[in-house]
Amino acid sequence: MKRYAYFISDGTGITAETLGNALLAQFDKLQFIRVTLPYIDSTEKANAAVSKINQSAKESGAPAILFDTIIDKNIRAIIDTADVFKIDIFETFLQPLEQELATESSYSVGKSHSPADSTRYLNRIDAVNFALDNDDGARTRHYQDADVILVGVSRSGKTPTCLYLAMQFGIKAANYPLTEEDMLDLRLPDSLQKHKHKIFGLTIDPERLAAIRTERKANSRYASLKQCYHEVDEVEFLYERENIPFISTTDKSIEEISTRILETTGLKRTMD
Amino acid sequence: MKRYAYFISDGTGITAETLGNALLAQFDKLQFIRVTLPYIDSTEKANAAVSKINQSAKESGAPAILFDTIIDKNIRAIIDTADVFKIDIFETFLQPLEQELATESSYSVGKSHSPADSTRYLNRIDAVNFALDNDDGARTRHYQDADVILVGVSRSGKTPTCLYLAMQFGIKAANYPLTEEDMLDLRLPDSLQKHKHKIFGLTIDPERLAAIRTERKANSRYASLKQCYHEVDEVEFLYERENIPFISTTDKSIEEISTRILETTGLKRTMD
Repeated sequence: MKRYAYFISDGTGITAETLGNALLAQFDKLQFIRVTLPYIDSTEKANAAVSKINQSAKESGAPAILFDTIIDKNIRAIIDTADVFKIDIFETFLQPLEQELATESSYSVGKSHSPADSTRYLNRIDAVNFALDNDDGARTRHYQDADVILVGVSRSGKTPTCLYLAMQFGIKAANYPLTEEDMLDLRLPDSLQKHKHKIFGLTIDPERLAAIRTERKANSRYASLKQCYHEVDEVEFLYERENIPFISTTDKSIEEISTRILETTGLKRTMD
Repeated sequence: MKRYAYFISDGTGITAETLGNALLAQFDKLQFIRVTLPYIDSTEKANAAVSKINQSAKESGAPAILFDTIIDKNIRAIIDTADVFKIDIFETFLQPLEQELATESSYSVGKSHSPADSTRYLNRIDAVNFALDNDDGARTRHYQDADVILVGVSRSGKTPTCLYLAMQFGIKAANYPLTEEDMLDLRLPDSLQKHKHKIFGLTIDPERLAAIRTERKANSRYASLKQCYHEVDEVEFLYERENIPFISTTDKSIEEISTRILETTGLKRTMD
């Protein structure tokens, strides 16, 4: 019988989900039914949550695992009455932190994410707009404002990586697809040459690339294994000749690709 | 003197950052210098991290606050020698979870995020591509595949919200900008009418909207306060007449807008 895992919060629930999923991932032999209950910010909602959790516990024959980031003590007390095994994130860590920092925590709800008017938040939204405006080689005149310019063959993962760098870290990432014409002379296009210090290359296993392209355009030259091998060979040759740092995106998540790029380039994650 | 806050991981560092920032946000009177050290997966890297952390502690005159999601016990032992106040996320919670679940955790690195070949991960990437393909009213013929269709006036927050819904939750979100022509009859465009059950409206304070539009196109009719009041009035009237659920994006982060939309629509976060 699958256990239920609840993520419960008086805010968005994203912190509880992130931590909870990281912990549950260490039990990869087990399967869980995951339920997030965000914005539990009134006694009515808390009571409704308790009923729902208890129903789940009954159904699966075992207490639900509960990941809790509720701040309000009264609401927390209600949730405590449910049939759960509780991982109480704030209760566990806030008090020791208060002692160490010799400061009382503000115990205020919805602080986990930067407020919508903070510098960090506005940077992130700016960066998302920058990524959209500078996607796929568009508007190359804005490269001087880019923190990083990703290059690579079509479908090697540039766009999702740029968006993730923007959304998560506030990094302004442009991207430029290296086409066959660009590769005729096996050198960087002029528009990129002068920003060479910001360029980061993506590469990908040709077989994986052919599979991805086939989903978009089956039976085309574009998706053929021969073409994919050829293009990947050429860009890797270019990266090496021009001393462009690069990473293979095969089997890597966008989180990993993005954080590896930050690690290599030394770009700062803007978190405050 | 500002304290240093370190986020340290043998993976991407994102879980340590998310939890650490959520906790530090409760101490909003204090300021921290944040440093993330990802991919600490060798004794050399661990020793280098210890030196760096100790240097920071010396500089600020107090131990660094350390948020740790390292799995490997040997590497963790090295990190423990640094001058830190440690919040050890896995050590604190994994053992109690092992007991409750009567299962040993796999203690394997890099499990916090879905692997790049998991269904969840592929769903997220699919959803990001869907959001890009169905942005700004493009390709309305794909609305039958959308989980939700965001509507609203230009610059009310539709695109970043669609991208966040896709990236974080694997939700396929299209968006359609309600233009003046659409509003001539104060009814939904035909292309949207048949998908009305999937539509969610965004609105925004007209003064905030005028400020955002002014950044893009100063001194235009488009950015004028009068025009913004007029457009917002019309769409809110439309939402109410057509019984379209809607939310104001003013002062809300994309995390909050996105999770409020999920809460209202009952759409599932695809997390596994």
